[in-house]
Amino acid sequence: MAAALEPKTLKGFRDFLPEAMAPRQAMIRKIEATFERHGFQPLMTPALEYLETLTGKYGDEGDKLLYRFQDHGDRWVALRYDLTVPLARVVAQHRHALQLPFRRYHVAPVWRADKPQRGRFREFMQCDADIAGVNSALADAEVLITGLSVLRDLGIDGATLHLNHRFVLTGMLAAAGVTDPTTQLHCIRAIDKLDKIGRVGVEAEMCTTGGVQAQVASAVLDLFADPDLSLETVDRVLTEKAGYQGEQHANSIGRLREVVALVQAAGFGDKLRFDPTIARGLDYYTGIIYETRLTDPKVASIGAVMSGGRYDELIGMFAREKIPAVGISLGLDRLLAALQELGHLQAQAGAQVYVAVFGAEDAGYALQVAYQLRAAGLRVEVDLPGGKLGKQLERAVKRGAQLAVVVAPEERAAGQVLLKDLGRAEQRKVPVEDLAVVARTLLGTD
Amino acid sequence: MAAALEPKTLKGFRDFLPEAMAPRQAMIRKIEATFERHGFQPLMTPALEYLETLTGKYGDEGDKLLYRFQDHGDRWVALRYDLTVPLARVVAQHRHALQLPFRRYHVAPVWRADKPQRGRFREFMQCDADIAGVNSALADAEVLITGLSVLRDLGIDGATLHLNHRFVLTGMLAAAGVTDPTTQLHCIRAIDKLDKIGRVGVEAEMCTTGGVQAQVASAVLDLFADPDLSLETVDRVLTEKAGYQGEQHANSIGRLREVVALVQAAGFGDKLRFDPTIARGLDYYTGIIYETRLTDPKVASIGAVMSGGRYDELIGMFAREKIPAVGISLGLDRLLAALQELGHLQAQAGAQVYVAVFGAEDAGYALQVAYQLRAAGLRVEVDLPGGKLGKQLERAVKRGAQLAVVVAPEERAAGQVLLKDLGRAEQRKVPVEDLAVVARTLLGTD
Repeated sequence: MAAALEPKTLKGFRDFLPEAMAPRQAMIRKIEATFERHGFQPLMTPALEYLETLTGKYGDEGDKLLYRFQDHGDRWVALRYDLTVPLARVVAQHRHALQLPFRRYHVAPVWRADKPQRGRFREFMQCDADIAGVNSALADAEVLITGLSVLRDLGIDGATLHLNHRFVLTGMLAAAGVTDPTTQLHCIRAIDKLDKIGRVGVEAEMCTTGGVQAQVASAVLDLFADPDLSLETVDRVLTEKAGYQGEQHANSIGRLREVVALVQAAGFGDKLRFDPTIARGLDYYTGIIYETRLTDPKVASIGAVMSGGRYDELIGMFAREKIPAVGISLGLDRLLAALQELGHLQAQAGAQVYVAVFGAEDAGYALQVAYQLRAAGLRVEVDLPGGKLGKQLERAVKRGAQLAVVVAPEERAAGQVLLKDLGRAEQRKVPVEDLAVVARTLLGTD
Repeated sequence: MAAALEPKTLKGFRDFLPEAMAPRQAMIRKIEATFERHGFQPLMTPALEYLETLTGKYGDEGDKLLYRFQDHGDRWVALRYDLTVPLARVVAQHRHALQLPFRRYHVAPVWRADKPQRGRFREFMQCDADIAGVNSALADAEVLITGLSVLRDLGIDGATLHLNHRFVLTGMLAAAGVTDPTTQLHCIRAIDKLDKIGRVGVEAEMCTTGGVQAQVASAVLDLFADPDLSLETVDRVLTEKAGYQGEQHANSIGRLREVVALVQAAGFGDKLRFDPTIARGLDYYTGIIYETRLTDPKVASIGAVMSGGRYDELIGMFAREKIPAVGISLGLDRLLAALQELGHLQAQAGAQVYVAVFGAEDAGYALQVAYQLRAAGLRVEVDLPGGKLGKQLERAVKRGAQLAVVVAPEERAAGQVLLKDLGRAEQRKVPVEDLAVVARTLLGTD
């Protein structure tokens, strides 16, 4: 029989078979529970949005990567590129149904027609928590604490949150002579790539895309090259060279100091590090920005696992008022890779008990037995292919079940089953009414 | 400030704000737990598939409703229309990584460019459990038992699963003189609409789309009009008028009898009803088919909440071998409406404890207090807008929090907090180290 159609997934898209999906799902549920303990509630938005809802928010590169098309009514639509712009739309659209501040989390796929490469996909899950409606250090701190709590609850101890502020970047650029806002944005996008393309690459991009003179680009990078670039030093640069004073100073350096103090008070002080090279590529950030890296050498190469920042102008693009917001986004693929490398996640969604069926006339009894075990909360699979008992028990082992129940005429007549502990290679006859209790004990679920 | 962009969702698409999303999510988690107890494991597939993967599986009407477009590499792609065809592709594509029988569940959105109307959306969640790899009555029964267990676990007692078999329909059609398979398919699609368009509409569609003569269409509908059309009567029609014998009889009437006996053995016999008018609109069904309706008068008008059937040829369209399969699909929107009408679901994801902050200098202490409560598993929101305590407590009540904690200088100095029970209008001072235990007790979570 020749296949009419080759079964294949699109490049950059993935199937998650149960072996890969079960731990992902376990991790997502843990993260959602942490979000909820921090007062965040679930939101769901459509995969498709009006194209104009999405364009002009991410920068030119983002716009190019949108999956866009005309629908059956000739409307231009696009698959969402992230969860932040849809949130901004929702807050504006449902302004009067929502109580501000609005804390929401959202775990869902997003789509980017990016060049697929190792660790980069065209469809991937984002996992965000945001607070809309308040611009304060306390709101910033709540978001950072939530993110750091997620890592702690997942069992990840070694993590450093690299914290910066967009006004620190624009101030440093101003100090080096780059004062035009659009040029600053081009430079920030270039600096964001420092890790990937290095100093030479960043300077080149600042010159070509940003139109900055070579010596100015070099001066900017000189500022960032200082290995001891502390908040104090930056404070001095901004005060002396960029003229930051009063409110401008309070909204950048002052804000960073407040946020750090609050996160320290909540017990996460050792996880924070001021890092003026953090830039974030998206245009919509206006306040604190940050990226989180794992410090355990086994997983340090995984890259940023949790990033985000404050974006006080984005919701205003849809609303008749300015509504400030701040959020975090977790990199699920990277986090999962880290957890598996660190051995922190052993999720099993497969059956714990496998019910083997001696013959067709035992099938009804087997279903009754399965019913009882399932009602007791156990994950149970009834053998379907049938055949010799030996074959059925082989399948039970392959499935990873710890127990097998054999339903056969002799035991059935006596109201019993044969219960096999596959790990310990032991077996015993058990009255059917005691089966669930005995199985739970053997599985250690009691 | 004028909004540059009107915030809006596409017609037929929905935002689920937390009030709507929290109970949906609670319901989905319950359903997933039931699926897992029945040996099903999670699978995730991409939203986008190659267009040719999806076309030609659902019938012409389905093909027309596909959201299709050319991607950046000029490939024709489409958003998935259901979760069954992607499953068929996965089973064929990962044939050697999967152990058959393969039991998987999948809860995810699908997209259909349908005319939006009450209760019909262009994006909606499907919630499916399927078994691939076995064609047996036991496999059919396991799927039906799983579905009926989902309803029971959700607290829904009054439900009837209307069971039929594609070969019963084709046999009845043959008995009335319609023997061409394509014409039979057209007639089945028409009969599927009996509830919606009535006998006259079905006969008309059989004549126009199916090319059946009016008197034949009428004869078919006469067969279905008998209010006492039992399995025994149908058995007689098929045996005498359609010549069903031997294997053909065993694979239709015989199979139905076996499935009913097994589902009865598992304790769900009172939920089953043979119903020869059940047709299912999709082309790929080849065996049992069914729809489930709620019987409680309060929710009986909601329509089918759980449907599905056996499709033994679909996976073979992608594979070099025939791999039989059977599955169920739950209608989440309808189930949720039923649960809310019946009062079976009170999900709350909002904060249980609201932390009010007297002044900026108390913020760090407030975060420590929140940390403790969250570490004890409680859902906690720290007030962000600030201002007068009275205002903050009003917000706590609006949020639905049961407890409020007031963090103020006097109590902070004494290592205490003021704990207010908002429901009972009581308050007390509590040492901060006892707070989590006292709060859990008041909330009844201990």
